[in-house]
Amino acid sequence: MRDDHEVGNPKSDQLATARARIAAAYDPNKLAEVGKQVVDLIAAHQQKIQAGNGNVLNWKTPIELVDQARESLLHTPPAEGDLLEQVTNLVQKSLDRGTNLHHPRYVGHQVPASIPLASLFELVGSVTNQVMAIYEMGPWATAVEHSIIQSVGKQLGFNPGTFSGLITSGGSLANVTALLTARNIALDDVWSKGLASQTPPPVIVTHAESHYSVSRAAGMLGLGTDQIVHVGLDAQRRMDPRHLREVLNSLRRREVPVIAVSAAACATPIGAFDPLDAIAEICRQYGVWLHVDAAHGGATCFSDRHRHLIAGIEKADSVVCDAHKMMFMPALCAMIFYRDRQHRYRTFHQHATYLFDPSAPEFADYDSGLVNLECTKRAAGLGLWGIWSLFGSQLFADLVDVTFDMAAQFFELLTEAEDFEVFCQPQCNIVVFRHVPLEMQAASDDQSNAFQLKLRRRVIESGEAYLAANQIENRNYLRTTVINPLTRSQDLADLITLLRKHAQELLKT
Amino acid sequence: MRDDHEVGNPKSDQLATARARIAAAYDPNKLAEVGKQVVDLIAAHQQKIQAGNGNVLNWKTPIELVDQARESLLHTPPAEGDLLEQVTNLVQKSLDRGTNLHHPRYVGHQVPASIPLASLFELVGSVTNQVMAIYEMGPWATAVEHSIIQSVGKQLGFNPGTFSGLITSGGSLANVTALLTARNIALDDVWSKGLASQTPPPVIVTHAESHYSVSRAAGMLGLGTDQIVHVGLDAQRRMDPRHLREVLNSLRRREVPVIAVSAAACATPIGAFDPLDAIAEICRQYGVWLHVDAAHGGATCFSDRHRHLIAGIEKADSVVCDAHKMMFMPALCAMIFYRDRQHRYRTFHQHATYLFDPSAPEFADYDSGLVNLECTKRAAGLGLWGIWSLFGSQLFADLVDVTFDMAAQFFELLTEAEDFEVFCQPQCNIVVFRHVPLEMQAASDDQSNAFQLKLRRRVIESGEAYLAANQIENRNYLRTTVINPLTRSQDLADLITLLRKHAQELLKT
Repeated sequence: MRDDHEVGNPKSDQLATARARIAAAYDPNKLAEVGKQVVDLIAAHQQKIQAGNGNVLNWKTPIELVDQARESLLHTPPAEGDLLEQVTNLVQKSLDRGTNLHHPRYVGHQVPASIPLASLFELVGSVTNQVMAIYEMGPWATAVEHSIIQSVGKQLGFNPGTFSGLITSGGSLANVTALLTARNIALDDVWSKGLASQTPPPVIVTHAESHYSVSRAAGMLGLGTDQIVHVGLDAQRRMDPRHLREVLNSLRRREVPVIAVSAAACATPIGAFDPLDAIAEICRQYGVWLHVDAAHGGATCFSDRHRHLIAGIEKADSVVCDAHKMMFMPALCAMIFYRDRQHRYRTFHQHATYLFDPSAPEFADYDSGLVNLECTKRAAGLGLWGIWSLFGSQLFADLVDVTFDMAAQFFELLTEAEDFEVFCQPQCNIVVFRHVPLEMQAASDDQSNAFQLKLRRRVIESGEAYLAANQIENRNYLRTTVINPLTRSQDLADLITLLRKHAQELLKT
Repeated sequence: MRDDHEVGNPKSDQLATARARIAAAYDPNKLAEVGKQVVDLIAAHQQKIQAGNGNVLNWKTPIELVDQARESLLHTPPAEGDLLEQVTNLVQKSLDRGTNLHHPRYVGHQVPASIPLASLFELVGSVTNQVMAIYEMGPWATAVEHSIIQSVGKQLGFNPGTFSGLITSGGSLANVTALLTARNIALDDVWSKGLASQTPPPVIVTHAESHYSVSRAAGMLGLGTDQIVHVGLDAQRRMDPRHLREVLNSLRRREVPVIAVSAAACATPIGAFDPLDAIAEICRQYGVWLHVDAAHGGATCFSDRHRHLIAGIEKADSVVCDAHKMMFMPALCAMIFYRDRQHRYRTFHQHATYLFDPSAPEFADYDSGLVNLECTKRAAGLGLWGIWSLFGSQLFADLVDVTFDMAAQFFELLTEAEDFEVFCQPQCNIVVFRHVPLEMQAASDDQSNAFQLKLRRRVIESGEAYLAANQIENRNYLRTTVINPLTRSQDLADLITLLRKHAQELLKT
């Protein structure tokens, strides 16, 4: 056989040079040296941020930042540059410009200050590029995922041996996947025949404030967003079971096929948990698929104090729970559960002989490609597996208890303050409120609405704290999620002070 | 304000204990200590595997492995255990059971031996949990993604300033997303009205051997997989433009709406690149959306030697290119490009006041949630940005050139061997062939087909090499992808020897 490199042959010379450059990029010694430096940089950053030093956000306009990111792509790297120094610069550039979710005044969106150690297990999966699609490609990644699904599913109350599940790339994709399964079960032949001949057109029945991914599912899956039927809410903005019954009755009378009832645990706007037990009973009576979007609240299953919020979830046909929310994993690790384990084979159908090996059908149950929208799929369960192994499931209970308690304390602080109006007592770690300083008490609704948004923008652009906003029944609110377990009462008191300070400055402009 | 901890109050005591456990899990000093140990373990593993020591696969049955993964979840961790030792055990357990893509005899699926240093940039994103959805949540992650999309898009030949793109969780999701966009543009009001009133039902026209995600898109998006129209192939299994014209003519005559023509660069079975220039011209004439699935082959845009394979790609309406394939990134980093930058707003519609801030419409162009199926989205571009910054785009050219060249060398080795039949000369780094030892030369088609699959299974279960299989026109083949740039001629010669050895053993059973 011939050599890889024939000296004097231009093509061969070019390939030898290419190989040398590749060898430098793959060098395990460099990986060790540079890797330890990166770990030190990250840990030093965590130390600073966890202590509340530095900004929560480093606000810059998109155009400025894109220019800064492009700079290092456009500039030809020095052939003999110092790799360690270059990586240090790039990592520090990223750390300095990132959003600091581990800062105690980060109380923004439903994205957690994740458990830092989880990322080390993800690093193992990333460097070795463990993926799934078929069992043989990622046997260990597959086993880890199955062990997690079994353990979380059991904790949710499903019967071991009878349920199944999978991990996918985010809660939105998880909701779409579960509703696709429901669609295919509700409408025979829809996978192959499509929806073109469906009359009357089928509907999805959902919580009036369900996540946008539910309505998107109707748009994506060919049902049409007009085919979303909203169920009315009770005083706590939970799905009203009496109204659900009326809706299902009316649909049945008109012979409209129902793909699913999609309930929320909790709905995003104020964190309202639907009464799942009552809803499940109604769905059972009507023979309708119950989907529960428990992306945020599913993790309450670990907490003795809070699991009552999802009582009845084990009666749902499908459940979504994001480990990258209240299990404090880095993004993305979303779980889907099917109460009936066979249902996961109703989502997709495919033919791909280069992938699925007919000579080994016994492994099909472990081929993620059959049940996931992803073909190549990250080993997204490794972080959760590592943390659970290190600390046990008690840590997940702790994280729910501590953040829910902090939200309750924040509610009390806000209630005591005369210049704040709280929307309602929080059911979890989401608190919705308005700041109404004396000067705004006679303001019009429009002025007051605009004030909340301007105030929030001013705060986040200052970098001093991060909170979100919300609109409920045409009123704008500030919205915080206590999703950093390092946030303490003092930080929330400081947030109130900050809001007052920025409000005063805003009123002067 | 009150204290977080009231001594003697049972609830307060419980929370204090919970806080202590959380503090241990978040401790930055532990992160530094444990992180450096994990880096050393990974680097040592890379050293061993890159040198060809150890197995390519560590084959175990799913049941065995799931039990091993569950073991550490079921066992309550010792309260005073040594964290460093525990992490070391868990990481080593994972490394020992993983698939070794960096082993030079890994020539399996289209998943690369990824550039190890890329994962260090991903680690930064993971520990700090940088995510997108709206610009303010991940300004730097967003900027990094935009810089990559601009740079790769330009390299593909799109006009700077007029195209747009995004990163999503895998090639399948990317194909579905782009075809959803095409569907919404082809069929007015389909997002809200659904497909129930569409007659005649619309179709997707595609390469006869397109990836299963294209046919899945028809199933998912409500069109129905029966509405997939396959275009015939030429002798190199590329889409035949003459047949495409006939298909579009016939559909036009029957007034059937065409969602898109989906071409492949390359199609997975044998790595055939469609003639994009000719196809684009036909699509232009018929006013039909051209989608190109360049998940595997898009990266040839970096190589002077191979970019002719995708000539004309810049005329496509949408293109998918997976950085986690031939740009050698760890999974997942799939890019979608739209030639007309406005088209990315045709994929989805949503209403989510708690997310999208009407007071800052100037940032909407940077809100990934508007264009991505993902709501919360990983900073999946960080690894690519880091590697490009360190080594320049030359490295991506090198990786294409070296692996394509190795496949060409493998083809020559196989051609010279009398007991191997090669399907055809490879167009890229995918080589499809059969092993036909003397003893099998008189075998029936069925026997010979079964033999290829049994041989492959025997090899992968031995752990000595990893290759895939395939079926083309009812004949089974072995299928290799040279997607580890560390694979050399000698490794491929060794693979041939291994196949012969296992074939002989198999013939004796």
